[in-house]
Amino acid sequence: MGKHLTTRAEDYSKWYNELVVKADLAESSAVRGCMVIKPYGFAIWERMQAILDKKFKDTGHSNAYFPLFVPKSLFEAEEQNAEGFAKECAVVTHYRLENDPDKPGKLRVDPKAKLEEELIVRPTSEAIIWNTYKNWIQSYRDLPILLNQWANVVRWEMRTRLFLRTAEFLWQEGHTAHATETEALEEAKQMNQVYADFVEQHMAIPVIQGVKSAAERFAGAVETYCIEALMQDGKALQAGTSHFLGQNFAKAFDVKYATKEGGLEHVWATSWGVSTRLMGALIMTHSDDNGLVLPPELAPHQVVIVPIYRSDEEHQAVEKAVSPIVKALYDEGVRVHFDNRDTHKPGFKFNEYELKGVPLRIGIGPRDVANGTVELARRDTLSKKSVSQDMLIEEVKNTLEEIQTALFARALTFRAEHTTEVNSLEEFKEVLETKGGFISAHWDGTSETETAIKEATKATIRCIPLDGEAASGMCVYSGKPSTKRVLFAKAY
Amino acid sequence: MGKHLTTRAEDYSKWYNELVVKADLAESSAVRGCMVIKPYGFAIWERMQAILDKKFKDTGHSNAYFPLFVPKSLFEAEEQNAEGFAKECAVVTHYRLENDPDKPGKLRVDPKAKLEEELIVRPTSEAIIWNTYKNWIQSYRDLPILLNQWANVVRWEMRTRLFLRTAEFLWQEGHTAHATETEALEEAKQMNQVYADFVEQHMAIPVIQGVKSAAERFAGAVETYCIEALMQDGKALQAGTSHFLGQNFAKAFDVKYATKEGGLEHVWATSWGVSTRLMGALIMTHSDDNGLVLPPELAPHQVVIVPIYRSDEEHQAVEKAVSPIVKALYDEGVRVHFDNRDTHKPGFKFNEYELKGVPLRIGIGPRDVANGTVELARRDTLSKKSVSQDMLIEEVKNTLEEIQTALFARALTFRAEHTTEVNSLEEFKEVLETKGGFISAHWDGTSETETAIKEATKATIRCIPLDGEAASGMCVYSGKPSTKRVLFAKAY
Repeated sequence: MGKHLTTRAEDYSKWYNELVVKADLAESSAVRGCMVIKPYGFAIWERMQAILDKKFKDTGHSNAYFPLFVPKSLFEAEEQNAEGFAKECAVVTHYRLENDPDKPGKLRVDPKAKLEEELIVRPTSEAIIWNTYKNWIQSYRDLPILLNQWANVVRWEMRTRLFLRTAEFLWQEGHTAHATETEALEEAKQMNQVYADFVEQHMAIPVIQGVKSAAERFAGAVETYCIEALMQDGKALQAGTSHFLGQNFAKAFDVKYATKEGGLEHVWATSWGVSTRLMGALIMTHSDDNGLVLPPELAPHQVVIVPIYRSDEEHQAVEKAVSPIVKALYDEGVRVHFDNRDTHKPGFKFNEYELKGVPLRIGIGPRDVANGTVELARRDTLSKKSVSQDMLIEEVKNTLEEIQTALFARALTFRAEHTTEVNSLEEFKEVLETKGGFISAHWDGTSETETAIKEATKATIRCIPLDGEAASGMCVYSGKPSTKRVLFAKAY
Repeated sequence: MGKHLTTRAEDYSKWYNELVVKADLAESSAVRGCMVIKPYGFAIWERMQAILDKKFKDTGHSNAYFPLFVPKSLFEAEEQNAEGFAKECAVVTHYRLENDPDKPGKLRVDPKAKLEEELIVRPTSEAIIWNTYKNWIQSYRDLPILLNQWANVVRWEMRTRLFLRTAEFLWQEGHTAHATETEALEEAKQMNQVYADFVEQHMAIPVIQGVKSAAERFAGAVETYCIEALMQDGKALQAGTSHFLGQNFAKAFDVKYATKEGGLEHVWATSWGVSTRLMGALIMTHSDDNGLVLPPELAPHQVVIVPIYRSDEEHQAVEKAVSPIVKALYDEGVRVHFDNRDTHKPGFKFNEYELKGVPLRIGIGPRDVANGTVELARRDTLSKKSVSQDMLIEEVKNTLEEIQTALFARALTFRAEHTTEVNSLEEFKEVLETKGGFISAHWDGTSETETAIKEATKATIRCIPLDGEAASGMCVYSGKPSTKRVLFAKAY
């Protein structure tokens, strides 16, 4: 366990890459751009999945599963989507290998087994799903359809980073069909709110809810709602999107329904998703130069207990004291891990759990046994104190809640300190270079200006905040009138 | 809801295909051989996943995630595996589409974006995982590794059937690494037992545990443990396999560990999996000519309540009576669904839930309200009775247990009636043609005989039962001596 991490101040990007690997979250694989999510990282993702899945079901959605492959022709059906969506995809062209006659023990693609139509490994599933919904929807009685799927998707990214941008990633994608525009719009907003609640309450990451500018909108969407978070290096990260698709996909796939009144209308649609990218946001929001810092809500182990002893006799005494503590914590629903390995020293374990971000560590040695105490160490503040065993369970529960709250508060303060209103392009550039973060500025609403600002500064419009107040002003770039500030930032 | 199904007697295969679609479990997609798992079918699969996942964790396993793609060269590394494993795979050769210059709005594969090495969409993950384990394992301290992943896999089957044989399917695959042969063997057996317990206790399907003959063994395995179930048409279905891989993959990928004693040894391995094929087994074991029959353990809705009324007044009275019933069942952990749709008549709903195999149906109308009763209908026996509302909760809980037990007992009886000891090839053929089922016969242990019997009868050795008694006899085909009977059957 090589603990020493590059510090954030030295090289934030390197710090991140090292942390992901050293904390056993994920690593690169033999396949370019594809990652292996290691058990510890996957356990965090499973926690996230379980909480989100419950939220989706509580809002009336069911899970289903659609094919991994999308025939090329379906991909072409929604024009904006085909045009606008990245074309970097994994393309399946053949369906068989054969023994290579020239090289014993080697395989080659069987040239006779060429597909008539190429299959695209799904980069997202609107096309295959709407091609399916076409057969499911005849009448208003068939609506709404409220489905979600947990799936892997592939986008052939040239520059990849673990969790943040990988060729294959895991996500959920909701795809809903509605009778009315209002209902679809409400759904898109509701799911963006579900995401915001999840990210804030469970991941302890404050987010701004907003809509995307036309340039940043999902290809094929009428409106893209999003949640935007701010990382410790002052760059923004899009943590989730929820698209109001209007009737675009219904028209592309000819999905109409008979209304109650006997008419025939195109169906209204939404889609919404979050991905393993959230793991990147989680890591970058809370962690420090000693390693990962996990909010208790998502930590696979909320508490780890490390026994300290020299002799077998001491070991037995410590084990005897630990046993009721483990049971009491388990009974209270605390995810506790007693690390009783005799292959590693306490110091090694302390370092390991610090690196892995376990929120609370309990150390217990012979002196603690004698005194009826334990040493309780907090990962977020790195503070330690001696706690009476009698008070321990309450103390643990309270401290876990405190940590969850403190992490959110700290991130919120950071964001507040790194959100700056600017009123000129010079100020914009200066703030961006010196301080980073969100820049709140007036914008004339045109894509031309957005592009020009991006070229001048590398910052993009992260969102037009939903709760932004109307305030007339002048575009920082064109000087034209504007009615509302929008949020710019450099982004992941 | 077209209820009328082809009967099993008319055409078992057609009955199955119709049932899967009409009960809203799955359907074919626009992609050859790939299915859409519909919400109702997926809800059953989710129940199965949740129970299995807990069993895996209770036996010390964690989940992880490995890449969808396997570079061709890794696929070649384990020779037996590369030779023996089906080569019908989806092969990714390109990573980009481009706008077709000749056809506006159309896309084509960008010939410049050809991969240097083709990627295979995983048909199974031993190769990519052992290539990863190589970097994780140095010392005995790193062992055992006990991992599982829930994933989609692709095998390019020519003849596909929903759930039973599809190009893409969902499964879990466990991959473990051990210091000793004994430990790995125990693991392989343990997981086969976990599968047997799950299938018998939760799916209510009796299984035979056994090992595969060399011909039916997984390519690359030293021993393949399996569980075999019998379907109502007398054909067997392999419901799960657990492979003891010996050191084959460790040798292929050069995975060695430093022993406690300072030596260097190859690691021992297992892999084990069950898939959405289990859905096929579930359907074919219990269902009847009226539709699906689900064991209560796996039913997404264990109880459905259908209100019966003519006037708004009656509707309100029924709703008022239903409300405490729903609450009481929910509080008891019963998965209850109150179908209060006003778009469909009770008769339609009765048919729908019969087709969908909901174990218990509660009908309640104005007369029931007056009498303090409900009508309780059992899906498995199609019997109905009037039950006092006061006794209902207990009655529901007891009946659900009864159904679970009864389904297993019925399937066990069927299997007993369709397992026949034969002592000659003539008898073998006659039983197979007239009655089907498992045929218990002496076999000389050679692949030649196995092949000859398969050619003569289309039956294969399903397994060599673990609990089979030693009994000397003569091979039904060759007349050579045999020490144990094995189970033959035609199989899915």
